[in-house]
Amino acid sequence: MKSVPERILMGPGPSGVHPRVRQAMALPVLGHLDPDFLAVMDDVTRNLRLVFETSNRLTLPMSGTGSAGMETALVNFLEPGEVAVVCVNGLFGERMADIAGRLGAEVVLVEAPWGEAVDPADVEAAVKGRKVKLVAVVHAETSTGVLQPLEGIVRVAHEAGALVVVDAVTSLGGVPVRVDERDIDVCYSGTQKCLSCPPGLAPLTVGPRGEEALDKRKARVSSWYLDLTMIRRYWGRERFYHHTAPVSMMYALAEALRLVVEEGLEARYRRHETASAALQAGLEAMGLRLFVRKDLRLAPLVAVEVPPGVDDTRLRRELLTDYGIEVGGGLGRLKGRIVRIGVMGHSARKRNVMLLLAAMEDCLDRQGFPVPFGEAEQAALSVYRAGGASGEE
Amino acid sequence: MKSVPERILMGPGPSGVHPRVRQAMALPVLGHLDPDFLAVMDDVTRNLRLVFETSNRLTLPMSGTGSAGMETALVNFLEPGEVAVVCVNGLFGERMADIAGRLGAEVVLVEAPWGEAVDPADVEAAVKGRKVKLVAVVHAETSTGVLQPLEGIVRVAHEAGALVVVDAVTSLGGVPVRVDERDIDVCYSGTQKCLSCPPGLAPLTVGPRGEEALDKRKARVSSWYLDLTMIRRYWGRERFYHHTAPVSMMYALAEALRLVVEEGLEARYRRHETASAALQAGLEAMGLRLFVRKDLRLAPLVAVEVPPGVDDTRLRRELLTDYGIEVGGGLGRLKGRIVRIGVMGHSARKRNVMLLLAAMEDCLDRQGFPVPFGEAEQAALSVYRAGGASGEE
Repeated sequence: MKSVPERILMGPGPSGVHPRVRQAMALPVLGHLDPDFLAVMDDVTRNLRLVFETSNRLTLPMSGTGSAGMETALVNFLEPGEVAVVCVNGLFGERMADIAGRLGAEVVLVEAPWGEAVDPADVEAAVKGRKVKLVAVVHAETSTGVLQPLEGIVRVAHEAGALVVVDAVTSLGGVPVRVDERDIDVCYSGTQKCLSCPPGLAPLTVGPRGEEALDKRKARVSSWYLDLTMIRRYWGRERFYHHTAPVSMMYALAEALRLVVEEGLEARYRRHETASAALQAGLEAMGLRLFVRKDLRLAPLVAVEVPPGVDDTRLRRELLTDYGIEVGGGLGRLKGRIVRIGVMGHSARKRNVMLLLAAMEDCLDRQGFPVPFGEAEQAALSVYRAGGASGEE
Repeated sequence: MKSVPERILMGPGPSGVHPRVRQAMALPVLGHLDPDFLAVMDDVTRNLRLVFETSNRLTLPMSGTGSAGMETALVNFLEPGEVAVVCVNGLFGERMADIAGRLGAEVVLVEAPWGEAVDPADVEAAVKGRKVKLVAVVHAETSTGVLQPLEGIVRVAHEAGALVVVDAVTSLGGVPVRVDERDIDVCYSGTQKCLSCPPGLAPLTVGPRGEEALDKRKARVSSWYLDLTMIRRYWGRERFYHHTAPVSMMYALAEALRLVVEEGLEARYRRHETASAALQAGLEAMGLRLFVRKDLRLAPLVAVEVPPGVDDTRLRRELLTDYGIEVGGGLGRLKGRIVRIGVMGHSARKRNVMLLLAAMEDCLDRQGFPVPFGEAEQAALSVYRAGGASGEE
């Protein structure tokens, strides 16, 4: 194939991929039942448990992107007519509600404005007096940059006897998810965010209540491809053939997870937090407004408002063509109103934060925005220096 | 990642992957809306049309393995209560019926014994007097090695006003599929067979009748992830975001398709045919029986019967450990009764055929099978020499 440009990926994902992960994909392909491939699968499972911070037996990557993980987490745990309470404060909450509706579930929405968090009291009101099968919530809303507090929602959901399904697509590996500590029943993610692996797999974990619900299903799962009652037999001791695993992607995920383990989870969370704090400080020092209030901000994805008079399409295009930097635009109702900047995984490094700030200054200045050159860099550096970040962090 | 062994993949897939394809996956990751990535998508679409031999607008790889392609081809074209006539003469026909049933369709089976082909007259009888939405048939049954003739089935299906859905997982790129010439409405495949790309994507093409059926749907597609009414907006001019494309896998498919185009489709079909004929001649000269009668044999996958007194698990294990050769066992009711040998894509070369025959001689001899050493090689060589094969073919 002809060469492709080397971008600095600071959008909502995919994030930058470590060279070791890219090279892992070039390894020879093994059969999906080869003993050496089964060893790779075991390695992936073991390290996924570390990253999810769970001892759940049923922990594996689904053979699709994060959205396949979302569909898996709903199609296996909802039967027609059952009630799903879905928290919606952004596009991915909407998507969960969309999927649950297609499955014939009765969907009850608990809404909050885009850019804010869902209130556990609203979830409590929604589950009251109903037989609710599950409560679904997005931990890290990629469309807005909100980190949803989970504790209150998990509590009211469990009090109502409902399963808790959590979307951790943009948090896993960058922000603590802590599946067991938080008592989450079903949690899924994508590989291309804070795990810094190419897109194509959806890590998933299912706890004891979730497995019990699977065992008790009355109807077959409407999706054959995502049917966990069969897939768990391939990932379990039995190794029962279901579908051909995406072998090369599994190599990539195995290597990406090793990098996480080598770095250490807590150090990795700190790196994301520092890079994001530095970025946020820089953007604010530049005179920009952040879309989400401070206590709800998701470190790996910073949403910044497009200032009046600035064309966000031109801004993003010039960042890409002049600096090779990819950032994301707003989705849905936020189109043209925000720019989404990712500091995820391998991309969450000082060199990228400092370059992004310098590039933003240049590109905003060209559109007549009054840029106070140098302020952003100083603000970002003061975060890095205060945090005692070391090396390339 | 630690190294993995370099196998000679001659099972039912994955097949051997050309080094250029493996290296393509190691290229820098681009965003799924990056103009340079959109160019890769265009390249993939154009070459997929060449391989399917179609001018269908809606031609793209789905973000999952071949089974996701199967589910896509059914979930988008069936609504609850509609009638699906499914041809079943092996495991993958059964899988189609299973999926259609989960979707709430009324499934009418047209069966033939495993190892034989489905009779168009039986399909004609099944569609008679019914309003049939689609007729589904497996072109290349990977569980048995049967190549299903399509012409008669397409004709009776269209006469009944039904769509024709064809599983070309193990034929595309190795055996002529010829979507337009045969007037197939929906056709899907996998990447890890005759296209010799790692598993993870499912090439799909939908013709005008299929697109019209999509437009006329009453119910939403029950799977969000596989919903073509949305996905076609990402692959079309609009580039409307649906899910994050598996970028590195797309590089691999782009490169694998380029190799197909460089070789030429007809030359590629001939290479598969010659390698398979040589393999078949060798196996028969060794005193083995082939499972499928000659006129129905699928070139890329040869099913050979396990002779009395031979343990197929030991045979396959010794081929793997002593020669690094992977072949497949029997599935379902054929478990222990056949061994499936693939000559697909990059694996369909003289060096592999000759080595496989020599290795089989060795491993069968160890189990006391009376091997006429040398006969197999001579029989295979005579096929290669008679066909005038050149170079490494």
